[in-house]
Amino acid sequence: MKLSRRALIKGSASVFGWARLASAQDHDPLPSWNPGPAKRAIVDFVRATTNKGGSEFVPVEDRIATFDQDGTTWVERPIYSQVLFAFARLAAIAPQHPQWKKTQPFQAVLDHDKAAMEKFTPKDLEPIIMATHSGLSVEAFQKAVRDWMSTARHPRFNRPYPEMVYQPMLELMRYLRANQYRTYLVTGGGQDFVRAYARQVYGIPPDQVIGSALETRYTYNGNGQGMLILEPKLLLNNNFSGKAEDIYLFVGKHPRAAFGNSTGDRQMLEYTQAGGGLRLMQLVLHDDAQREYAYGPAQGLPGTTIGTFTQELYDEAKARGWTVISMKNDWRTIFGAPGRPPVAPSL
Amino acid sequence: MKLSRRALIKGSASVFGWARLASAQDHDPLPSWNPGPAKRAIVDFVRATTNKGGSEFVPVEDRIATFDQDGTTWVERPIYSQVLFAFARLAAIAPQHPQWKKTQPFQAVLDHDKAAMEKFTPKDLEPIIMATHSGLSVEAFQKAVRDWMSTARHPRFNRPYPEMVYQPMLELMRYLRANQYRTYLVTGGGQDFVRAYARQVYGIPPDQVIGSALETRYTYNGNGQGMLILEPKLLLNNNFSGKAEDIYLFVGKHPRAAFGNSTGDRQMLEYTQAGGGLRLMQLVLHDDAQREYAYGPAQGLPGTTIGTFTQELYDEAKARGWTVISMKNDWRTIFGAPGRPPVAPSL
Repeated sequence: MKLSRRALIKGSASVFGWARLASAQDHDPLPSWNPGPAKRAIVDFVRATTNKGGSEFVPVEDRIATFDQDGTTWVERPIYSQVLFAFARLAAIAPQHPQWKKTQPFQAVLDHDKAAMEKFTPKDLEPIIMATHSGLSVEAFQKAVRDWMSTARHPRFNRPYPEMVYQPMLELMRYLRANQYRTYLVTGGGQDFVRAYARQVYGIPPDQVIGSALETRYTYNGNGQGMLILEPKLLLNNNFSGKAEDIYLFVGKHPRAAFGNSTGDRQMLEYTQAGGGLRLMQLVLHDDAQREYAYGPAQGLPGTTIGTFTQELYDEAKARGWTVISMKNDWRTIFGAPGRPPVAPSL
Repeated sequence: MKLSRRALIKGSASVFGWARLASAQDHDPLPSWNPGPAKRAIVDFVRATTNKGGSEFVPVEDRIATFDQDGTTWVERPIYSQVLFAFARLAAIAPQHPQWKKTQPFQAVLDHDKAAMEKFTPKDLEPIIMATHSGLSVEAFQKAVRDWMSTARHPRFNRPYPEMVYQPMLELMRYLRANQYRTYLVTGGGQDFVRAYARQVYGIPPDQVIGSALETRYTYNGNGQGMLILEPKLLLNNNFSGKAEDIYLFVGKHPRAAFGNSTGDRQMLEYTQAGGGLRLMQLVLHDDAQREYAYGPAQGLPGTTIGTFTQELYDEAKARGWTVISMKNDWRTIFGAPGRPPVAPSL
C-alpha cells in the first residue's frame, strides 16, 4: 500500500505527533533553542508578563509581539522570495506586454540576463514590482502568490519556501500565542504577498500581517459586486520608520516584544522599547554560513540598506540592552526536517 | 451621606445591574429593539452563521462585523462631535497662533461667528481639522480628545457624548461579540479621535477602529526614545470607497455584517455583500424627530454628501436586499438613562 504524503503527515501527527509534542513542550517550549541569554530572555519575559499579580503583568489585550519576516522568520538570501516571485510573474504575463522585450529592466529578466539582474538596484526593481503586483484583483493576486509558492524552491537548499522558515521562530510564535500574545508579522515585504501564505505557514491571520502596501481601487465586477484592484502606487512603505508608524496605524499601541534582523527593523524595536516597562527586543544575527548564511556587522554596509545588520545597529543593540540571537550558537535546529509540516502554527 | 456619582453607578450596577441584565438577555439579546424585520434579520443571521454543521456556518476567525460611527452608533446632528472638538481645541491652542485672529476660517471660530461657521464647507473645515489634529504626539492628541470628551455635552440633549450612543447598537455589538464576532468601528471620523474613547464607550480596542488617518512622523524624545508625531497630511480618507479599501487593508477579508446610515457607507455594505454567502447589511434611517432627528431620503441631497441617506441609497438598499432600520419603529429605546453607564461594552 502506498500512502500519500498528506496521509503520512496526518497519520504521524495523530499517532505520535502533536499530542506528544505538546506534553514535551510543558517542559521546554523552545526545544530548537540552545540554553543561553536569548532563550533565557524570552522565557523570563513571558513568565513575568503573564504572572498575574506580578509587577510586570500585562493584560491580554496588550500582549502584542511583532516579527519582521525576511531574515527574521525565514531565509532572505540570496534574494528575497518576493523578488523571485516578481521575476516569475513577469515572465508569465509578458505575452500581454510585448514592449517589455525591448525595455529595461524588464528585458533583463525576460532574457535571464544574470549579470544585469545581479546589478539591479531598488530603483530597477520598483517598476518590476509595480508591474507584477498591480492591475489585478486582490484575490487574483493572492492566488498567483499561492500558485508560485506551491512550486518555487530555494535556489541553494532546493526546498519549498514554507520549509525555509526558521523552526526556532515558529516555536517562539507558538509559545507566545500559547501565552495569549498576538503574533504580528511586520514585514518590509508586500502585505498582500505575505498574507497569501501567512495563515498556512505561520498560523497568522491576515489582520495580523502588516506590510508594504499598494493602493487599491474600488470598482464593480460584471455582476455589480464591489471589488478591489491593486494599483501601481505605494501607500505604505513598511521599512525603517514605516514599521513604527504602521504598527501604530494598525494596532494603536506599542508592541511588548519585537524581533528583527536588520536596520529596517531598528525603529520597530526602538518603538517597542519606548512603551516602557518590561519589553523584549531581539535581533537575529546571521553567523552560520554552514547551516544558513553569514552576513552582518562585519559586512560594513551603510546603515540605510534594508536587510543588513550593520555595525551601527549592533552597537545600538548593545547600548539599549537588546538581545542578539546568534543563529550559530542559540539555535540547535534551524529548519524542520524536509517534507515535515512546520512546527504546528496552530491558530 | 452624599454618594459620588461614580459610587452610585458602581453600586447600582452590582446590586441590581449586570447580573439581572445578563439573565434577561438569555431570552432576548436585543431588548431595546422592537420585533420587526430588522431585529429578525439580525437574530436569524447570528443563529445561522454560528450553527455548527449548518450550511451558513462561519468559522470564528471570519466573524467580522463593521459599524460606521456617526449616525450609526451615535448622534451625528447637528454637527459631528469631532468638529466640535476641533473648534474647542482651536480656541485652546490659539494663543500659540496669534495670526489666526486675522485669518479665515480660524477667525470665525475664535470670534464665535455662528453665521459664518454654519456656512463652513468641508474645504473650510479642512485647515481647522489639520491645525487641531496635528503637530503633537499621538499620545498627547488622544489625551486632548479624552479631556474634551469628559466635559463636552451635546447641544440639544445636554448630555455627555458617551451617552449619545444608541443603546440598540450597543446591545447589537454585545450580542455579536457574545457570538464571537469581532466588532470593528469603520468611521469616516478620525482614527485617533475615535480610538481615544472607543474602548471605554463601545468596548472596542484600538486595533478594531479603522478611520480616516493622518500620516505620522517618527522622531525621538529627549531621552532618545522613539515617538510618533501627527502630521497635517491625510493618509487614509475612510469614506465611500475608502471604507472598502481600508477594511481590506486592515482586516484582509470581507466583513460578514456591516451597519451604516449614509452614502459614505455604501461601498462598505456592497463590499460586505460581495463576499458571498449569508451576509447582513443594515442602514439606520433617521426618522424620529422627537427622540433623535429626522433626515434622509426625503431630504434630496446629492449622493456624494457624507452623512446623508439619499433616495438613491434607499433604492439601492431595497434592490440589494439590505435592511433599513427605522429608528422610530425598530428601536424601543434610543438612549440609555441619563448618568447610567452604557449597556455593558464588555470586551
